[in-house]
Amino acid sequence: MKALVYQGPGKKALEEQPIPQIREPSDAIVRINKTTICGTDLHILKGDVPTCALGRVLGHEGVGMIDKVGAGVTGFRPGDHVLISCISACGKCEYCRRGMYSHCSTGGWILGNQIDGTQAEYVRIPHADTSLYAAPADADEKALVMLSGILPTGFECGVLNGKVQPGSTVAIVGAGPIGLAALLTAQMTNGRGVDTAIEAVGVPASFITCEDIVAPGGTIANVGVHGVKVDLHLERLWSQNITITTRLVDTVTTPMLLKTVQAHKIDPQRLITHRFKLNDILDADDTFGRTAETRALKVIIAA
Amino acid sequence: MKALVYQGPGKKALEEQPIPQIREPSDAIVRINKTTICGTDLHILKGDVPTCALGRVLGHEGVGMIDKVGAGVTGFRPGDHVLISCISACGKCEYCRRGMYSHCSTGGWILGNQIDGTQAEYVRIPHADTSLYAAPADADEKALVMLSGILPTGFECGVLNGKVQPGSTVAIVGAGPIGLAALLTAQMTNGRGVDTAIEAVGVPASFITCEDIVAPGGTIANVGVHGVKVDLHLERLWSQNITITTRLVDTVTTPMLLKTVQAHKIDPQRLITHRFKLNDILDADDTFGRTAETRALKVIIAA
Amino acid sequence: MKALVYQGPGKKALEEQPIPQIREPSDAIVRINKTTICGTDLHILKGDVPTCALGRVLGHEGVGMIDKVGAGVTGFRPGDHVLISCISACGKCEYCRRGMYSHCSTGGWILGNQIDGTQAEYVRIPHADTSLYAAPADADEKALVMLSGILPTGFECGVLNGKVQPGSTVAIVGAGPIGLAALLTAQMTNGRGVDTAIEAVGVPASFITCEDIVAPGGTIANVGVHGVKVDLHLERLWSQNITITTRLVDTVTTPMLLKTVQAHKIDPQRLITHRFKLNDILDADDTFGRTAETRALKVIIAA
Amino acid sequence: MKALVYQGPGKKALEEQPIPQIREPSDAIVRINKTTICGTDLHILKGDVPTCALGRVLGHEGVGMIDKVGAGVTGFRPGDHVLISCISACGKCEYCRRGMYSHCSTGGWILGNQIDGTQAEYVRIPHADTSLYAAPADADEKALVMLSGILPTGFECGVLNGKVQPGSTVAIVGAGPIGLAALLTAQMTNGRGVDTAIEAVGVPASFITCEDIVAPGGTIANVGVHGVKVDLHLERLWSQNITITTRLVDTVTTPMLLKTVQAHKIDPQRLITHRFKLNDILDADDTFGRTAETRALKVIIAA
Repeated sequence: MKALVYQGPGKKALEEQPIPQIREPSDAIVRINKTTICGTDLHILKGDVPTCALGRVLGHEGVGMIDKVGAGVTGFRPGDHVLISCISACGKCEYCRRGMYSHCSTGGWILGNQIDGTQAEYVRIPHADTSLYAAPADADEKALVMLSGILPTGFECGVLNGKVQPGSTVAIVGAGPIGLAALLTAQMTNGRGVDTAIEAVGVPASFITCEDIVAPGGTIANVGVHGVKVDLHLERLWSQNITITTRLVDTVTTPMLLKTVQAHKIDPQRLITHRFKLNDILDADDTFGRTAETRALKVIIAA
Repeated sequence: MKALVYQGPGKKALEEQPIPQIREPSDAIVRINKTTICGTDLHILKGDVPTCALGRVLGHEGVGMIDKVGAGVTGFRPGDHVLISCISACGKCEYCRRGMYSHCSTGGWILGNQIDGTQAEYVRIPHADTSLYAAPADADEKALVMLSGILPTGFECGVLNGKVQPGSTVAIVGAGPIGLAALLTAQMTNGRGVDTAIEAVGVPASFITCEDIVAPGGTIANVGVHGVKVDLHLERLWSQNITITTRLVDTVTTPMLLKTVQAHKIDPQRLITHRFKLNDILDADDTFGRTAETRALKVIIAA
Repeated sequence: MKALVYQGPGKKALEEQPIPQIREPSDAIVRINKTTICGTDLHILKGDVPTCALGRVLGHEGVGMIDKVGAGVTGFRPGDHVLISCISACGKCEYCRRGMYSHCSTGGWILGNQIDGTQAEYVRIPHADTSLYAAPADADEKALVMLSGILPTGFECGVLNGKVQPGSTVAIVGAGPIGLAALLTAQMTNGRGVDTAIEAVGVPASFITCEDIVAPGGTIANVGVHGVKVDLHLERLWSQNITITTRLVDTVTTPMLLKTVQAHKIDPQRLITHRFKLNDILDADDTFGRTAETRALKVIIAA
Repeated sequence: MKALVYQGPGKKALEEQPIPQIREPSDAIVRINKTTICGTDLHILKGDVPTCALGRVLGHEGVGMIDKVGAGVTGFRPGDHVLISCISACGKCEYCRRGMYSHCSTGGWILGNQIDGTQAEYVRIPHADTSLYAAPADADEKALVMLSGILPTGFECGVLNGKVQPGSTVAIVGAGPIGLAALLTAQMTNGRGVDTAIEAVGVPASFITCEDIVAPGGTIANVGVHGVKVDLHLERLWSQNITITTRLVDTVTTPMLLKTVQAHKIDPQRLITHRFKLNDILDADDTFGRTAETRALKVIIAA
């Protein structure tokens, strides 16, 4: 099969690879119909993710059709149309039972990182019963792919962790230097600060902005992937009754988000700016990597 | 009346002062029977608390007898035996309605800071109905004084904010360099980390220790008063699903803690190591300030 | 002034009454601009509410202008445009501190019940600081009146108590016998039952319907005012992990709902079907009382 | 093997039965060391549980040693010392993911009810990975058996559902007519009522007592297994802001309770009043069935 393979920092190639096979009773093999590219894929290509070995098939988001299942899989059978979660979860370990699938002792974010991923014609999904979701009969595959990672990430790490409530003031800090300046000069909320500041970049400057604008009793919800430490101004914040949260998405809200998308309360396709075929995935990577220029948000890669 | 007065960094004196009078309809004047000294009083004396002006009567904890009440006070009358909360709360502003009394728009931590405090024979308590608590008939005054500030602080900022649950692993980081070293070398929790790390000192080293020992999904509850910023290692913690909280005590749990003390489930007198008379409050300050030597925890100052 | 006065079961009259005066330091006198009629006003007229004495001015919803304030009122002054909460709250008692204003020891639902109400030219509001809300500068008075009682009742007693979540299945049982029959025959949720069943009538049949349709793990949120007991089928429900809640509205969500209405997320004027002048309030009562015929939902009564 | 078999209302026998075998990849066979008898076993013998067929091996609590595991079991291997949960949970269905194991779509309370149970020498446990718990090395087996059902039932259905908090007033209604009379005449809580009323019998009289004694804002947590409906006095309770809960134990708190027992915070062996051998289980049943006379609480049946 064709697959996008990581060959070390800065290097990747669309290669021919063997089709993956069932290894554990809880595995499923999924034939990929649609996949996408995530910001963390760029981190891997920069060499920032040491757990990702050379030769790894990239990608952790996707929608497809079940090809084969292991003997222990009870919830799916070949031919089922499924959504792949970016987080694999055994459903049995202490973390899974607490709903913290991101830290599953034999799962978590392993697809396209510690095991081969979804930017390929086929993928092996461990713990299939608790890592796949049945696609509704009338679902749009492009919308579904947004449910693999980006939608639960924004909702769980930003909205839920940020304790966003009806009526609360929310700032999403992720607009680059100009946006930050705008935000700082906007005299938002009459100097009272925001109830929720969502850090959506992963750099010290935006986190510091969050510290500056959060109201007493407010929450800073970190979504960004950070490469360096930040200054936490406890000399001012110790008495401000604030909460700071970090989170690798758990995808526990995927079933609810799926219902919400099906009920047309959210339209995740609005995030999709570009479309490619798997054969052209290197172009897709290039487009997604030069977002300042291409204004790419999410790209769809079809089989 | 006699009162301990702040006279600038490093200077304080037991002076004669006029007895405070009712200023607002919601005020009460309380004759102090017992008070104590808090670590923040030492901060004031070091000049670290700019809101505290020269000439201020210090102290924000105490138990006493109502002497006079304003026309708007409905819950107390002269002669009532009362516990003074270190936090004054109007009960009306947005913060008070959210239970965040610490940030009351006309209250908060003002006693012995922005208005005259409790290390005196009498004190004026604003918002008396919502800043005083009726002392139970058979209550021990020394135990009650511990409810003015230290007990709700530990409970609200440490236990509640730290989400301590039955069965959770908790580390209280406040043991000085040797303690920290011990903690780090103890291979606590088999390397998994603690569910709750309570920072109880207010220095960068102990906060960093909390960052090092908190488990995925865990909480760092800051209790310490910090004077400088700390390093927050988001490059490691962004994916660890942790929560960091800060809090100036709200004293919302005082009624519950009062019941718990009366039910003999907690014995707060065990925190009391030394006893003085108000006339000897300078000695009390000295004893409390040299805790490494005197091993003082909480001192009681009786009228 | 003109006021609608209760004169015993089945009897009421628009009478001339003295303008109310300040009695307690926390009182305010409000000149009513708009008021409305509630289903509980009909209960009073039927003689179902023994706490409501003869001669009582009816009504517990309204919007108006502050005329006078007592010495202890700090949040409002004459001329302020205000929303009146149907629930009066002292903000000091144990129930108020728990956010359960409906059971305030010196308040709760007293307006138009235990003290004179809002279907008049003026009304005395006790505990004004914690029972009135500032009307936003550009607010529509008709929308505001819906915030006095009906909107927080639906939200608190139905939505919040019913734990309604994104994605949950909700049945509002209040459609009369035909509606109930339809509901029962609709094979809703494929026999699994609803996550939330809201009882919105106050009769045994609709409560029983809720028992029949609630899913395992679901909630029955009672909103209706009941006159007789109902059968609770514990022989079936004991193992179904359900929750049943009752609630007299606390109006704790009024500030949030006010923001939500101002942000045009809810348009409460859609509930208003008829408009009258205070002089014609008996006609308004008649229209509201014959709702099956007039299809009245909420009526607005302007000064 | 020997096993206690249900032979229809009023009939049971200790019979020779074939040792159970693995049927599904997720099964385990456990050799029972200790088991006990539950009140619901008496309900089965009375013919009250129609799901329990003739020929069923009774019992749903136990501690033992893993004898065999299916191919899909990853958490246990032969020789492991395990605690059996009275609730079997697949860990995959919607109910299990919500922590509502009691309503697992292929599990729940099935042991000794819909499939053969633990009052035998061996038992087949479906969904072994998520229905068994590793016994700590130094655990007392008699204490562990109390964790199979009775301890999580009291904690989840009574304490958690009853929202018992430090400082709250709790009544456990389960004392028979005399106890109820005492409770009613005790003028408990000065007429204010209790925060939590736990119904622990399963008869209308005790549930009505709970309705009578619950305070505004309080909770009635039903634990008892009811055979008939009860009167719910909504004509009085509609405005009292109360919550009523029912629950078949989910055993989600078993890991936490296990830690708590190991930390010697709870000593569940205090519930054990009598001890028998499996050969004498009919005597054990008799002793447990005549509790008024024998004062039996929990009996231990050893292999």
